[in-house]
Amino acid sequence: MNEVSLYTITLNPAIDRLLYLNEKLERRKSNRITEVSYDIGGKGTHASYVMSKLGVKNLALGFAGSRNIDKFKQILSEKNMEHDFTIIDGRTTRECYIMIEPEQVSAGSIMLTEKGFHVEEADIKRLFERIKARVKAEDMVLIAGSLPTNFTIDNLRQLLRILKEIGCFIACDLSGEAIKLAVKMKVDFIKPNEFELKQLKASHESLFDTVKRLNQDIDYVVTSLGEKGSYYGYDRKIYRVIPPKVKEVNDTGAGDCFVGAFLAGLANQLSIEEIVKLASGCAASKVMNKDSSTFDVKTAMELKQQVKITQL
Amino acid sequence: MNEVSLYTITLNPAIDRLLYLNEKLERRKSNRITEVSYDIGGKGTHASYVMSKLGVKNLALGFAGSRNIDKFKQILSEKNMEHDFTIIDGRTTRECYIMIEPEQVSAGSIMLTEKGFHVEEADIKRLFERIKARVKAEDMVLIAGSLPTNFTIDNLRQLLRILKEIGCFIACDLSGEAIKLAVKMKVDFIKPNEFELKQLKASHESLFDTVKRLNQDIDYVVTSLGEKGSYYGYDRKIYRVIPPKVKEVNDTGAGDCFVGAFLAGLANQLSIEEIVKLASGCAASKVMNKDSSTFDVKTAMELKQQVKITQL
Repeated sequence: MNEVSLYTITLNPAIDRLLYLNEKLERRKSNRITEVSYDIGGKGTHASYVMSKLGVKNLALGFAGSRNIDKFKQILSEKNMEHDFTIIDGRTTRECYIMIEPEQVSAGSIMLTEKGFHVEEADIKRLFERIKARVKAEDMVLIAGSLPTNFTIDNLRQLLRILKEIGCFIACDLSGEAIKLAVKMKVDFIKPNEFELKQLKASHESLFDTVKRLNQDIDYVVTSLGEKGSYYGYDRKIYRVIPPKVKEVNDTGAGDCFVGAFLAGLANQLSIEEIVKLASGCAASKVMNKDSSTFDVKTAMELKQQVKITQL
Repeated sequence: MNEVSLYTITLNPAIDRLLYLNEKLERRKSNRITEVSYDIGGKGTHASYVMSKLGVKNLALGFAGSRNIDKFKQILSEKNMEHDFTIIDGRTTRECYIMIEPEQVSAGSIMLTEKGFHVEEADIKRLFERIKARVKAEDMVLIAGSLPTNFTIDNLRQLLRILKEIGCFIACDLSGEAIKLAVKMKVDFIKPNEFELKQLKASHESLFDTVKRLNQDIDYVVTSLGEKGSYYGYDRKIYRVIPPKVKEVNDTGAGDCFVGAFLAGLANQLSIEEIVKLASGCAASKVMNKDSSTFDVKTAMELKQQVKITQL
């Protein structure tokens, strides 16, 4: 693949500040930070990172604030990510704080998130024009993450219509009203978690039947039901995925990693089974790492051999 | 007072990032930040802020990193503080994070601190030259806060010698080896807390006797012993201070506020009783506020009427 054919759209990205502590976080004392590192958060960007790391050319699109754009771009380029964000003048990309304690003392992740910027109609129009100018029918587009406060469901509908008119493959990792709309508009891929799947479920319907029903209109329905395991619906059949057993350090970002690898696999025209194994292997490698995005390709390739898929 | 006659030296300042939360901080969830504000931390700067707010002209000196100097200066100017920091090229002023929960749910302050920059011998020399050029015999200088990692006790000794040679009034709000040195070099003012006083105490000596002994060589020895109350030694007599009763919201920074107001009172040539009342009133107003430096002059003036001082 020489040309870009894969795009991610992150509408509400974040500069994630990872604060590493040398002890467990305690109140009423001065907690010493030993190291600070940065990441671009907001889901779509994490998927782009995974694709890039798997050698699949892609472009990260979305909004970014002008005020801290230098820092934003610096992080993207340190992660070797191609990007073309629509810059919002006079706004600041939100910052999120993730505190990482030493493994042996950690009592669970600690994350603080800002709400994010306002976008004007003119900004939205600029982003949409950029998408129209770039994306072609044979391309794949992932919309992932939360929406800026005043980016409405109507705005999302416009965006999905634009992509539908282009005729490209549409993947969505959204929640709440946004995922409901994605379902209604019959996108090609969704990845609801248990909470989101419950939002999509009709009363008296089992979660299993919900996946089945969604798969009538949506080609790829991938879902993780926590301890109940992971399932995916493809070609109107439901499969159970048994991921490899690994030592879980931090499962934050595992879903984003899965989605990025899944789309990378699709772009490389792997079989659905190979794609799911690849994505599960990458996500399993991710949870072995402290931060929200790091995974190791070599480890992922080993782990994917241990993934088991059974048709239900 | 038209000319500056009061200086603060903050050797290891910090950009404090105050993150306001809408709920109690919990692990394993996304904690929403409702507001972010900034302050310059590092003790000396807080004292400067208090003096400025009390209308006492002063200049904040110390080190600051070049990389985030714009942000640093912006915060100082928003707080109406006069400053002339010695900029360290290629270094970043450390950042500290203070999480502020709604009063009714807070279970104690949460603070994360970075260690701070390295300073080179040349930087130290530049700061010392600046001090020699500015400070005169009739001036007062406060050295407050922690030392940069490689600013040694020997460097501090050099600094104190320079000030001794100038012949100015020397106030120190230091801890560990640094406060021990300040005592040994017979500075004019120290403000040990209970922990620091214990470091200064000889074996078999009571804390009370330690204050008495220190006061032989040091004109002003002010100490807060937590629940045991506040004491000061002046003119070889020990006084007990009963502060006004206020609703405590956050006592972080109360000591810095006390020191700033104390030196402002000295600069205005108030009586020792008036000075202690003013400083206690300001500190009491401070603890009614959520952040580390805010206090209200009007409230402080009312509260100072309630301060009781008794000679022991």
